[in-house]
Amino acid sequence: MADMSVRTPDPNPGWLSEIALDETRSRVPILYVEAVPVRVDALGSVEHVGLLLGGSVTTGVMTRTIVSGRVMHGESVRDALLRNLEKDLGPTAFPQLPTSVAPFTVAEYFPLPGVTPLHDPRQHAVSLVYVVPVTGECNPRQDALELSWLTPEEVLSPAVLGDLEGGRGALVKQALAHLGALG
Amino acid sequence: MADMSVRTPDPNPGWLSEIALDETRSRVPILYVEAVPVRVDALGSVEHVGLLLGGSVTTGVMTRTIVSGRVMHGESVRDALLRNLEKDLGPTAFPQLPTSVAPFTVAEYFPLPGVTPLHDPRQHAVSLVYVVPVTGECNPRQDALELSWLTPEEVLSPAVLGDLEGGRGALVKQALAHLGALG
Amino acid sequence: MADMSVRTPDPNPGWLSEIALDETRSRVPILYVEAVPVRVDALGSVEHVGLLLGGSVTTGVMTRTIVSGRVMHGESVRDALLRNLEKDLGPTAFPQLPTSVAPFTVAEYFPLPGVTPLHDPRQHAVSLVYVVPVTGECNPRQDALELSWLTPEEVLSPAVLGDLEGGRGALVKQALAHLGALG
Amino acid sequence: MADMSVRTPDPNPGWLSEIALDETRSRVPILYVEAVPVRVDALGSVEHVGLLLGGSVTTGVMTRTIVSGRVMHGESVRDALLRNLEKDLGPTAFPQLPTSVAPFTVAEYFPLPGVTPLHDPRQHAVSLVYVVPVTGECNPRQDALELSWLTPEEVLSPAVLGDLEGGRGALVKQALAHLGALG
Repeated sequence: MADMSVRTPDPNPGWLSEIALDETRSRVPILYVEAVPVRVDALGSVEHVGLLLGGSVTTGVMTRTIVSGRVMHGESVRDALLRNLEKDLGPTAFPQLPTSVAPFTVAEYFPLPGVTPLHDPRQHAVSLVYVVPVTGECNPRQDALELSWLTPEEVLSPAVLGDLEGGRGALVKQALAHLGALG
Repeated sequence: MADMSVRTPDPNPGWLSEIALDETRSRVPILYVEAVPVRVDALGSVEHVGLLLGGSVTTGVMTRTIVSGRVMHGESVRDALLRNLEKDLGPTAFPQLPTSVAPFTVAEYFPLPGVTPLHDPRQHAVSLVYVVPVTGECNPRQDALELSWLTPEEVLSPAVLGDLEGGRGALVKQALAHLGALG
Repeated sequence: MADMSVRTPDPNPGWLSEIALDETRSRVPILYVEAVPVRVDALGSVEHVGLLLGGSVTTGVMTRTIVSGRVMHGESVRDALLRNLEKDLGPTAFPQLPTSVAPFTVAEYFPLPGVTPLHDPRQHAVSLVYVVPVTGECNPRQDALELSWLTPEEVLSPAVLGDLEGGRGALVKQALAHLGALG
Repeated sequence: MADMSVRTPDPNPGWLSEIALDETRSRVPILYVEAVPVRVDALGSVEHVGLLLGGSVTTGVMTRTIVSGRVMHGESVRDALLRNLEKDLGPTAFPQLPTSVAPFTVAEYFPLPGVTPLHDPRQHAVSLVYVVPVTGECNPRQDALELSWLTPEEVLSPAVLGDLEGGRGALVKQALAHLGALG
């Protein structure tokens, strides 16, 4: 949702030109879906959280993020969620999509930093956020991205939380609280 | 979210011209908030559901709907929810906004009827839907709109459900199920 | 949770004698977990709902039910959920337990019929209810029980809903509403 | 749920003798309801969290807790929630009970400390936990109890979280995460 998305181009980039997208971003909030990938045990308890690592094109700094992408015009929320999971985790991740389309939270990103913990310099974005267990092999499609599986304890370290771009450390903490794994 | 909105103009219509809005509607899904107003007893159990009654400008047919409106650029979800509640229920409704921004469901409206139970001929809209208890006096601001308080049983009659525009009968049933009042 | 449980004895019946259990039932509400088993597609949308069919020992009437069982003393909710899923669906059902322990609803069964849609002649029971996707083969362990996979439309027929014991037709409708499959 | 409850006797103590309750506690998990009282602004955002302060009879140490109490035999979850809110906050707190009986989380207390963050030396307790806005004056009925309203930031200080009895610091953090106020 920040500039890492430049390195994870949408498979259907023609759906909207960059110029049209920029114009649209100045007019309405842009709808996203985001997913916190997790590995769970047989009881459904989270064992590991998957964080994507990538380099920011504009700043050159390495940052972490979660699965994230726009909902396209005409696309259902479920389709967008699956498409973005496959875009970021590869075709063999076998994500278990939620049975209910209600997100565990709604994340709001504003262009100005400081208004909320979350921000996105490009736009006002509103994101439906889900926790998604994955059971298969994850192979991020882009060379620049790696996926790391961290324990909840590791994720909650200030260093990792601080590396999450756009203030998503707060969002991942909220996800762990939802899972009962905040410690 | 259908053409009744023509009769409930946004108090800040200048935020986006109709031409710009039409263009935007062809590019991205438009984010809405919707609210099912309810009266509850001391235990939090729903006693009545508030449905708005209005005449469609294009068809002249009377239809029912719930509180509904766009999230503006730069506006938070909570601000949009309160603004649209006041727009549709008046300034003395005293709505009790949800403590969590997570909606009980996400409603997806597509321009083509039949794809899903919900449709909106104007656009692809995605709506965060909440149940909102109101304790004050409701005075719909527009002459054309009336608010009726119906019991859950009355709401569940096929005649009432069928009057809800855009297929929202399914959405109101889902709200009643969430409240444990589906019968 | 009604008398069908006589035919699905707990694998650890010694945890509490019938006499002690009866006495306890007269003193406090008894905590249950219940699960609506579902088959979902790659997008997480429900395709089929699993209903158990069994004969009531006391009445001889065939009734349908969902996965249901007590939470034992010292047992976690997740352990109880997995144990009862295996008890009713067999060891190869591969249920995908929820990542969050928060149920989608709480079902309250009172001994007296008519107080609520749900009742249990044996006790006051309070049940944490989950929707659980299963991906494997289901083999109910008891000869008397069969598992049928029905589409949401089939489940919503009055005949099927009426066959659900203890008033669980209302509960299954609520589950389908939660899944966005109420129609 | 720990020994502070000795100082907040149930108004209907005759519902179950201490001996019968002790015996029951050794047999089944005991069902509780708990509530985190909050003050919210017009948008539903939490401004203050109410924590009860009391002295432990057995240890003499001052501890903090939230609203907590058993669900009685024959009592509905909503009735138990309102009764315990009135017991701990007084008759003029005007709590806004949730419209849905689904809790935001389920808390599990085991007699042995260390199994989970939560523990209760007296029993295995399972608690349905809610966030409940209150709009009126809170007057804890018992002399020994005071109610303090703290900002989310104040609540999240290690000193306050550590004062919460039975490990409820983790539970209150989870509540704040649910409200989007984890920081």
